[in-house]
Amino acid sequence: MMTELSQIISQIEPADPAWLGRAQERLDSLTKPPGSLGRLEELAARYVAIRRELLPPLEIKQVVVFAADHGVVAEGVSAYPQEVTFQMVYNFLEGGAGINALARHARARVEVVDIGVNHDFGEVPELISRKVAYGSRNLAQEPAMTRDETLEALLIGVERAEAATAAGVDALAAGDMGIGNTTAAAALAAVFTGRPVGAVTGRGTGIADKVWSHKVAVINRALSLHRPDPHDPLGVLAAVGGLEIAGIAGLILGVAAARRPLLLDGFIATAGALVAAALVPAVTDYLIAAHRSVEPGHQTMLDFLGLKPLLNFQMRLGEGTGAALGLSLLEAGVRIYREMATFQEAGVAEKPE
Amino acid sequence: MMTELSQIISQIEPADPAWLGRAQERLDSLTKPPGSLGRLEELAARYVAIRRELLPPLEIKQVVVFAADHGVVAEGVSAYPQEVTFQMVYNFLEGGAGINALARHARARVEVVDIGVNHDFGEVPELISRKVAYGSRNLAQEPAMTRDETLEALLIGVERAEAATAAGVDALAAGDMGIGNTTAAAALAAVFTGRPVGAVTGRGTGIADKVWSHKVAVINRALSLHRPDPHDPLGVLAAVGGLEIAGIAGLILGVAAARRPLLLDGFIATAGALVAAALVPAVTDYLIAAHRSVEPGHQTMLDFLGLKPLLNFQMRLGEGTGAALGLSLLEAGVRIYREMATFQEAGVAEKPE
Repeated sequence: MMTELSQIISQIEPADPAWLGRAQERLDSLTKPPGSLGRLEELAARYVAIRRELLPPLEIKQVVVFAADHGVVAEGVSAYPQEVTFQMVYNFLEGGAGINALARHARARVEVVDIGVNHDFGEVPELISRKVAYGSRNLAQEPAMTRDETLEALLIGVERAEAATAAGVDALAAGDMGIGNTTAAAALAAVFTGRPVGAVTGRGTGIADKVWSHKVAVINRALSLHRPDPHDPLGVLAAVGGLEIAGIAGLILGVAAARRPLLLDGFIATAGALVAAALVPAVTDYLIAAHRSVEPGHQTMLDFLGLKPLLNFQMRLGEGTGAALGLSLLEAGVRIYREMATFQEAGVAEKPE
Repeated sequence: MMTELSQIISQIEPADPAWLGRAQERLDSLTKPPGSLGRLEELAARYVAIRRELLPPLEIKQVVVFAADHGVVAEGVSAYPQEVTFQMVYNFLEGGAGINALARHARARVEVVDIGVNHDFGEVPELISRKVAYGSRNLAQEPAMTRDETLEALLIGVERAEAATAAGVDALAAGDMGIGNTTAAAALAAVFTGRPVGAVTGRGTGIADKVWSHKVAVINRALSLHRPDPHDPLGVLAAVGGLEIAGIAGLILGVAAARRPLLLDGFIATAGALVAAALVPAVTDYLIAAHRSVEPGHQTMLDFLGLKPLLNFQMRLGEGTGAALGLSLLEAGVRIYREMATFQEAGVAEKPE
């Protein structure tokens, strides 16, 4: 499995800045004052640089939602009971969750991957069944995953990226479902960014002050126990991560290798990006931060990765909901780039020198 | 004409806050932690309060672009020649402008209104021909419009709102085209917000430092000449406004009277909102600020109106481009509100008390 991972990693190259220049040249020929569409122009140029073609299509969009449970819920760190994870998976499959509504809005597909939910779904054709385990273990007492489980989950993410690009998907978004996963994400944020746990830990689905203090204590205990080394990203992920976070990290690697953009969602998805970027710094060229989450550690992560969020909508749902909005905004950027007339085509006078 | 205006004004009521509460009740029953969709929830609740029904549809969206010329271009305040106004109108009608691409993205119609372009278009069926004059006069030397012209332009805006709602339009956006119009908009901003001209004047389509200083001087000269009184909004609009800005102000009045939301674009459209709000403060309940423009006076206007922009995309194109993105975001908010399953419907455990 390590060989497979190394192979994917070796395929990831930084985006070529020459393509940014080529895209900007076209943008400046369109019927608008140069630069006047701001971040929409940035999105278009970024997309061209990722795809390495002058007029890349943006037809098929897909959100991949990885679902898994977390043993650390035994510590009482979450506002909701664990069964909400599998109940929400059914909700995704029925089309009734936030991500379904927002993916329909963005004209994007939703793929749901059971990578580690503590529930037997039986035969559900629309569910991608890739259960590595019935949830991760309690990271406050033992490593959340073995190294083999971690690698397996990463490679499932890579596989989903490859399946998507083989099916003609032009742009992807990553989402998550997993009661307890802000605890794992905060632990990863603390390890990779070096910030204190209290500064990167939030209220998840909505815990009270007292539970928040306990959550911080639980994460600090886990970090004392495992002493994860940020220079060993797989080791960090195994110790304090989660199966869906590993899946997202793998998806990011696969998407970057396939030269597609990945719209990042909030705190959980960006924790996956921290792992992917620790393995291959160049992946950040393929990431577009859709929004800034309410979780206080999210901005810290984005700053660490050098990413500037498109939206600040006070969202904190996960599932890929913010990323779905980001897919729609990316499409807006690509549309102005592809569909606007040039000054010459439209017979409009250019700005005199 | 004054009677017609008074009649519209008398129909505008503040949005009913009880509907915000009813909408929030439904939002809190949906399968997500309460409040976790942030501004999308705000948009949905605002839409319900504007429409005054529990599950209002959002099917038909329309951008109305008002185009007019400005005599003040004779002062050399703009980076582009005046003929760009009519050339861009043709571009709108051909579908090649930024607003066309972004309206397609938002699945919105585009209506183009010639309310004062300095050009004879002849017979163009797709163009709404409502030319009040061949542009406003040079506001640095005389009033930009007579009171009658101002009223006529306002009522054209009202008429376009009425035509749209009669055609079943659920949500509208206002856009502008008019070389020279940031000069008029900055003058209006200075008068209504009371801020110095230098603080609310920007670079428009991209003028150099020296031209900017000249633009500020021209506006200051106009304000000394006309001494417009902010308590006489029509007088201010006539003295230093423009025909498309009057059209936008009228559209806002008509949209508020018809209980529809209006997505505000940038600096020019928000200048129209300043006029409308000076006539009827309650119109702000019907306004959604789509974005914060690069123009430095725009945030001042939004603060004055008590509006919080959805996007900060460094845009400064006008045409309704930012507002079209806003229509799409409004739709996202309405979709989560209308399409998400409740906890009960989906069989998902709620947060324990």
